Amino acid sequence: MMIPAAVNLGIEIRVLAETDGMSAGLAAFGVGDYRNREVVLAFAETVDVITFDHEHVPQEILRELVERGVAVHPGPDALLYAQDKLLMRQKLSELGLPVPDWARVENSTQLAEFLADHGGRAVVKTARGGYDGKGVRVVRHAHEADDWFLALAEDANGGALLVEELVEFKRELAQLVARRPSGDIVAWPVVETVQRDGVCAEVIAPAPHSSGRLSEVAESIAIAVAEGIGVTGVMAVELFETVDERLLINELAMRPHNSGHWSIDGSTTGQFEQHLRAVLDLPLGGTGARDAWSVMVNILGGPAEGSLMDRYPGALEAYPSVKVHNYGKDPRPGRKVGHVTAGGDDLDDVVYQARATAAFFQD
Amino acid sequence: MMIPAAVNLGIEIRVLAETDGMSAGLAAFGVGDYRNREVVLAFAETVDVITFDHEHVPQEILRELVERGVAVHPGPDALLYAQDKLLMRQKLSELGLPVPDWARVENSTQLAEFLADHGGRAVVKTARGGYDGKGVRVVRHAHEADDWFLALAEDANGGALLVEELVEFKRELAQLVARRPSGDIVAWPVVETVQRDGVCAEVIAPAPHSSGRLSEVAESIAIAVAEGIGVTGVMAVELFETVDERLLINELAMRPHNSGHWSIDGSTTGQFEQHLRAVLDLPLGGTGARDAWSVMVNILGGPAEGSLMDRYPGALEAYPSVKVHNYGKDPRPGRKVGHVTAGGDDLDDVVYQARATAAFFQD
Repeated sequence: MMIPAAVNLGIEIRVLAETDGMSAGLAAFGVGDYRNREVVLAFAETVDVITFDHEHVPQEILRELVERGVAVHPGPDALLYAQDKLLMRQKLSELGLPVPDWARVENSTQLAEFLADHGGRAVVKTARGGYDGKGVRVVRHAHEADDWFLALAEDANGGALLVEELVEFKRELAQLVARRPSGDIVAWPVVETVQRDGVCAEVIAPAPHSSGRLSEVAESIAIAVAEGIGVTGVMAVELFETVDERLLINELAMRPHNSGHWSIDGSTTGQFEQHLRAVLDLPLGGTGARDAWSVMVNILGGPAEGSLMDRYPGALEAYPSVKVHNYGKDPRPGRKVGHVTAGGDDLDDVVYQARATAAFFQD
Repeated sequence: MMIPAAVNLGIEIRVLAETDGMSAGLAAFGVGDYRNREVVLAFAETVDVITFDHEHVPQEILRELVERGVAVHPGPDALLYAQDKLLMRQKLSELGLPVPDWARVENSTQLAEFLADHGGRAVVKTARGGYDGKGVRVVRHAHEADDWFLALAEDANGGALLVEELVEFKRELAQLVARRPSGDIVAWPVVETVQRDGVCAEVIAPAPHSSGRLSEVAESIAIAVAEGIGVTGVMAVELFETVDERLLINELAMRPHNSGHWSIDGSTTGQFEQHLRAVLDLPLGGTGARDAWSVMVNILGGPAEGSLMDRYPGALEAYPSVKVHNYGKDPRPGRKVGHVTAGGDDLDDVVYQARATAAFFQD
């Protein structure tokens, strides 16, 4: 999704892709493994700025790039906090930002203590991805994380798990910001994100009932995060709005993020254009909403047979003004294969149109 | 500019380009000459639908493609009227559509007669491009077209010139429509186009004072043209609004057109997305304006030294909400190297912002 923004601005974009898919084919410079030092270093020699659509490039490679004088945005110091949730929690606590109660736990005894102090339930997370599925688990007994402790014990790097209080929240929000290396920062309106089965399903922009204090607090939190850890490019801060009306930081994403897809069609500057402007240290674009309401609905999985394209006649006929984004990926249960964005003055109608359009693409 | 729309919709696009420029590099299948039968036939075998960003592919090649069963949109029967201005005038007259007084003239005697009947001045046009510059000349004496008559006399295909009354117009308008092979047709708001030195400089959408009758007449004319000659894809009808408040058809363009660039940022469906939907016979998108006013200003020529990109810091800083489109072409006097689009509620402010942004890119 960065390619259209790059084409419009006349920015030459080169993609280092793992496989030669459709999006790679459009702008590919090379196919290779981002974990392979030689591959990344060779790629870096062909471009002015390196950026990412995920946070998994190893720190050692990022730091070598920086030492060689390559402009890397976001840089390794910032990316570290998106790569390691324990370091992230620690840093945000140091910055005095609102986070759920948390602890670093190295064994089930420590976890049991945390559970005892927090009503007998908690969320356990692996600090880094890769141990198990998505690495997030709600537990009521300390032994429910035994497999993860065992894996850590067997890991030469050692490590620990992150445990957090299970926050009672009214809803989840996300605050998207973009920051240039020179320090300028802009924020889009705070949005409401609706998760289903742990996956983002819908986003409403702006978040209903967010005018005034709520949006100001969300924005000030995200700006404090971005400045506190030196983020460059787009960052999404996922927030809990608690039942007692506090905002707590859930997760950080240091890249254009699903919660910001509405901005492609719904804001003066879409997040992918903004990300390019930010990482190139160009002046940032306006972040106003173009409609009273924008609603983004993910296309999850896609049709059981055939492709998304097969559903265009029905979907585009029924909802001619909803914007459809098709990632050109093969349908697979649960996979994000596209999204749709509707906009307008009547939130109920906008939600209806977005959901109904997305439904055409799912069985 | 078709590439971003194709990427968003997951449509695989392949470009047959004359030279291997930046836009070609993004999606190029091959570099080759569109006038070369073998090149075009080979290219056609790799795609489902053929469309164009100019009207110059020779009729013989287009007709052979159709005979071979290739979907060609717009088809040769329609494109003929964009390729040959004499045939276009004849066809529009047959359809009973409003055109300036015109005649086919084969020599200066016939031209002198037309001049005598039209106040001693007229516009002479070559039927097909290629004889001289842009092929349009205002004349007051019959001998002022002698070089063109001479060129026609030496041309084995023979032919004639088109002469038209010099229309006294208040302003120029353009009506953009899109039509599917199955017949559905949609129209954007009629726009005002401002020409300088024979080149489109600015477009205001919608055309000021166009609500009501004017927009209805413009739309009905363009629909009649599209249906009358079987256009598929996007078509722009350039119109004169005469001092006595009639609309007369000036030119036709059977492709996304400069007068429609505002729609990329200013309409629910941009003309390039719509063109793709139309030529693929998919349902057409909403054509409403997203702002009260959109103003598009062309970047003509570009900076005397360096590239458009060099001007981004100043332009984007001063006008963060104006959308900049950089075609990635080398600056050259008079060349259309990009455009900018501003949108908002106050026309004076929108015009100011668009002009001021474009000015950053020109010396």
